[in-house]
Parts: sequence; structure tokens; C-alpha cells
Amino acid sequence: MSEFRWDPLKGTWVITENQRLRQPREFIIERQRTSITVCPFCPGQEGKTPREVYALRPGDTQPNEPGWQVRVVPNKFPVLRIEGELNQRSSGLYHSLQGVGAHEVIIETTDHQRSLAQLEVLEISAVLQAYRARLLDLRQDRRFRYLQIFKNHGVEAGAPLPHSHSQLMAVPITPPVIRSELNACLAHYRTTGNCLICDLLAKEIADGQRVVFNDGRFLVLAPYASCFPFELRLFPLQHNHDFALQSDQELIDCARALQEMLRRLFRLLEDPPYNFILHTAPPVPVETTKPGYWQTLASDYHWHIELVPRLSQIAGFEWGSGFFINPLPPEDAARFLRATDPELAL
Amino acid sequence: MSEFRWDPLKGTWVITENQRLRQPREFIIERQRTSITVCPFCPGQEGKTPREVYALRPGDTQPNEPGWQVRVVPNKFPVLRIEGELNQRSSGLYHSLQGVGAHEVIIETTDHQRSLAQLEVLEISAVLQAYRARLLDLRQDRRFRYLQIFKNHGVEAGAPLPHSHSQLMAVPITPPVIRSELNACLAHYRTTGNCLICDLLAKEIADGQRVVFNDGRFLVLAPYASCFPFELRLFPLQHNHDFALQSDQELIDCARALQEMLRRLFRLLEDPPYNFILHTAPPVPVETTKPGYWQTLASDYHWHIELVPRLSQIAGFEWGSGFFINPLPPEDAARFLRATDPELAL
Repeated sequence: MSEFRWDPLKGTWVITENQRLRQPREFIIERQRTSITVCPFCPGQEGKTPREVYALRPGDTQPNEPGWQVRVVPNKFPVLRIEGELNQRSSGLYHSLQGVGAHEVIIETTDHQRSLAQLEVLEISAVLQAYRARLLDLRQDRRFRYLQIFKNHGVEAGAPLPHSHSQLMAVPITPPVIRSELNACLAHYRTTGNCLICDLLAKEIADGQRVVFNDGRFLVLAPYASCFPFELRLFPLQHNHDFALQSDQELIDCARALQEMLRRLFRLLEDPPYNFILHTAPPVPVETTKPGYWQTLASDYHWHIELVPRLSQIAGFEWGSGFFINPLPPEDAARFLRATDPELAL
Repeated sequence: MSEFRWDPLKGTWVITENQRLRQPREFIIERQRTSITVCPFCPGQEGKTPREVYALRPGDTQPNEPGWQVRVVPNKFPVLRIEGELNQRSSGLYHSLQGVGAHEVIIETTDHQRSLAQLEVLEISAVLQAYRARLLDLRQDRRFRYLQIFKNHGVEAGAPLPHSHSQLMAVPITPPVIRSELNACLAHYRTTGNCLICDLLAKEIADGQRVVFNDGRFLVLAPYASCFPFELRLFPLQHNHDFALQSDQELIDCARALQEMLRRLFRLLEDPPYNFILHTAPPVPVETTKPGYWQTLASDYHWHIELVPRLSQIAGFEWGSGFFINPLPPEDAARFLRATDPELAL
């Protein structure tokens, strides 16, 4: 079983996989691209994945059969496994925790050829509904401190399978990236009474030079301190700490903004590889009046989606310092993207 | 001029380059490999680099002429520039600092074909002497809070030029990675009176399963919470916080351990791309009895070299969470490397 290990010098956690012995040669081969013959995410291949945990089936079709529009299955090669207890262990300066969690795959479309940018708004909103459904289901498990939804698009971004999909990892430790954001939001709330992100959005709208898209409901901007060229963040303008509490209509509005963001990138940068990550408040085990799922903490947080195109490499300086070097000011990135027509010639 | 920008949500700093307007097409092209016709680091091409700031010249030869063994020049395309004041600026929630610093290239050998792993111990120690000389020189500039020495080897690790070289960046902010380590060492010293890294090394030597190499002077190990397969750290066993205070003999001993580490990786993983980073105590502006250079702070720190092979990609989960997933336990990596003969068939 894999485990979480804590580094006493860096104060960070790492997931160490040790489910089978791997040979050095496998790591040499990882530099090559992998190829598969039959796509396990295509309709008709449902038997090649573990049994589905969610599916949007517009017609009256059976689970694990064709007829789905969006399908969620456990990852066949999960980094974290759902069974087991956390079993924290310490040995002097070292600590570890069993690699308990969940690792699911959200198959976004039946069409092997179309990427998320190429889907229609209602199709994208069906993907967001699947995210919401899985968040609401998995937050009932008290072992999970955070539910991380992310998408790797393109081989350079870590997606060896081309069929469009995103992933969900439930983890037993709040991720440090989320913890830092929660702390910053809490500190700002304590000194001002305001949501930090609401204040940032007001400042960005007034300034305007980093805004890519704003339809009054959702806003896409190139962050002031972008780490990478064309890095983008998508925010709801209406304050909400928890993605899972968004209504169907809000998910459609979000899908429209996400489609705008992805299509502008697709056209400007010729379908670049990218990662996006949903940042939302972590669940806490306090049952609400609405039975069946847990309330979340941190109502001073503000959910959003972060997108990082993978156009350049992280090298020794970034790894050793924690400073990133961004060769393109976000004001230029936003200007280029504003001038790009989001209509795809499909 | 480039600038440092602070992210109020993440609490991180980014270097934003804005020295010239770049076009989106340049970022598409970055996915291709670049090629050059004449190597500016080869002997006879000294005029293609800025004028040297250090050179080891065994014979009686002139600066910026052939005859050098190791040569240090300012980077022709520096991320940070040596001229100017810091000029901290704030605008509400955003802060920035001018991109003042230094960016130098250490050309490790005259031979275009040989990598650092292929050099002899005395040749590697000449490279380490160049590191020491540049640290001692640049720490006289009170604007610099840290001097980061690092090496990118191979295209996948961010080295577009194949001629073996490392780099030095002087930065006006202590890097967050170093700050975390200093804080961990200080906290451990306060509660135990000991150096955290000395205590970790004693534990690792007693355990033994993660040790790759130990000649009684320097030790190479696979860290307990390795982020990547075959990640390694090299430590002096004699406590020393400051690389620049190492003697000539200590640099030779260090070169021997570094050569062992690099050659075992070279043989086991067929010359993998890698980054290594020197971690050493930051300089502080307190003049010592030894004139001409500054004492460093943090004598409870312990300098070391961290090496990260670039065999896998960082994807959405790592970027979004701050957790890394390592598919190879460090105990296995150390065992494979111990069993590898460091003698190269050159």
C-alpha cells in the first residue's frame, strides 16, 4: 500500500507508492510516449474499467453499458486506495500515514476525438454536475480531508490517454496549497471582514488589464503573479466557498466561462497541453440539516479553477528556490486572449 | 526590467520578465527543441559570451582568451540584472520588487562532449572552487539575500545548450524553499540543541537502507520522503552551514562523492536528465575579521546538494495540491544505486 511521508527538513508530505517492485528500466522507458490499441474510455469498452460510481444516462440504459454521456469510474491503477485506516506511524524524526483515499476518473464525453474545449456548454455543464455529485458523495467519508478534482490535457501535461477525462483524488491530509490559501483568506477576513478573493476580484475588475472574460456571473483573469505564461483563473463573481453548493444554473454559467477560457487558449496556442485544478473549501465532518452530506468549513474561502498551460519546463532554479520565472507578463497574456475569437472552426 | 511579484492568495513570489514584448507564437515554439550551430561555451568562442568574471587558467593566459579550465561569465540573457535598486512597490493587495540580482553561467569544462559525470575528481573540484569563489565575491553585495547555484542537465531538465554548465542566480529575497529549511533547522536547534541535518544523518547511517554512498567524509542518500524516483541528497558528514567556508581538501572530497553520485545515475539510468541545487546558508551583511567577505547567518544550518532526476512529469494533482507522487520507494532507489558500479566505460 502506498503511504504519505513527511519530510522534516522541508515540512512537506509526499505520497510514496510501494505496491509492487519497479525496475530502473521502467523509469528510462517513461521518457518515451506510451500507446494503447483499444481506448478503455470509449463506449462499448465499459468492461475495461472498474464498475462505474456515477453516470449521466439520458436514456433508460443499464450501468456499465453504453448509453452514458458522462461516466465516473475508480482509477484502474489508483495512487490511493479506498480501503483501510490511516495508521499514523512515527519513528523519531519521520512520520507516515497509510495511503488511504480515493482515485476516480471522470470520462467527459463518449467521443474519443473531442477535447473539453470542443464540447458544447451543456455538455461541459454535465461534466461539472459529475464533479458536484462526486464531491457530495465522497465528503460523507470522514477519513478524507480534501477532494481534489483536476484535469491533465495532453501528454506534456501528464495525460497518457488521449480520450478527454479529468480525475478526482480524495486525500487524508489537507493539501499544503489549499491550506495556504485558506490561511490567507482567514487572515484577510480577520483584519477586514471581507473575502480576500472578492476584494481581489473587485480590484481586478476596476483595473481591467488582466481580465480576459467577464459576463457578470463568472470572470476569467491572468493572475497578477502568474507562475507560467497564459496561466488563468476562473472565479464565480457571487461569493461561494463551496463548488458543491452551486445550482444547476450556476454550473451552466460556469461551463460557459470555462468553454470561453479553453477555446481562447485552444485557438491562440494551437491546443496547448494544460492542467486545471478545482480549488474549493475542504469538507468538515459536521452534519447539516440537509441530510446525506457534510457541510464544509471556511465560508471565508471562495472556490475557483486554476489553469496552467504546459509550455515551458520547471528547471533547477524553480525547484531549488520555489520562485518561478514567467517570461510573459500576465497583462500581455490577457491582452492576447481578449483579442482571440473563442469561436472554434470545428 | 523584470520584477518580483507577490501573490496574496498563495503567499508566493514570482519573477515576471517584461524586458521585451513576446508573441504567443514563441510559446508554441518552445515545445520544439532549439538547436545552435556554434557553441558559445567552447574554447575559441569566448567573444560570444559576456566578459568573464572568474576563470581557472592553469597556464599564463589572458582573460577571455582560450587557456581556461573552468570559466564563469554573466548570462547573456539574464533573468535578473545587476544594476538598479530594489524599489519595493505596493498597490493595495499587490507588492512587487525590481528584478535586481545576478545571473551567471559556470562553464565546467572546455570539452563540448563531456558531461559533469564524465569529468575526473580534480576537474569536478575545480568546478566547486569556481562555485566557492563566486559565492565569496557576490556576498559582498548587500542587496542579495541568497546566492542560488544550480545545474540543469539535459533538454528535459531545462538545459537547451548541451555544453556542460551550471548557473548562479543572486536574488534579493530569501527563496521560500531555503527559508523553510532554515526555519526547520532553527526550530530543531531550539528544542534539542542539535543540528537537524546532523541528527537525520546519524539516523540514516544507523538505518542504512537509504544510504547510497558513505566514505566517512561525504554521504549520499535517497531521502525518506523523496518527491521523485532516484532523488538524491549529498551531505558533508562534518557539520558546516556554509559551502563557501569549505577548504580545498574538503572540495576534493565533495567532488569525489558528487562524481560517485552522478556516475551511478549515469550508468543505471542511461545518462538521465537531472537538476541539482546547492543548498547553503544565506549571506548576512556582517563583516568578519577575515576582510573582504561577509559572514553567513544560520550556523545551525547544514549545507548540502539536492539532485532530482527528471524522469516523470509534474501534473495537475501535484501542481494543485503540493503533494508529490513518487512511484519508487527511496529504499529501492538506494538499493539499485548501491548495486551499480560507478566506473564508467568512457
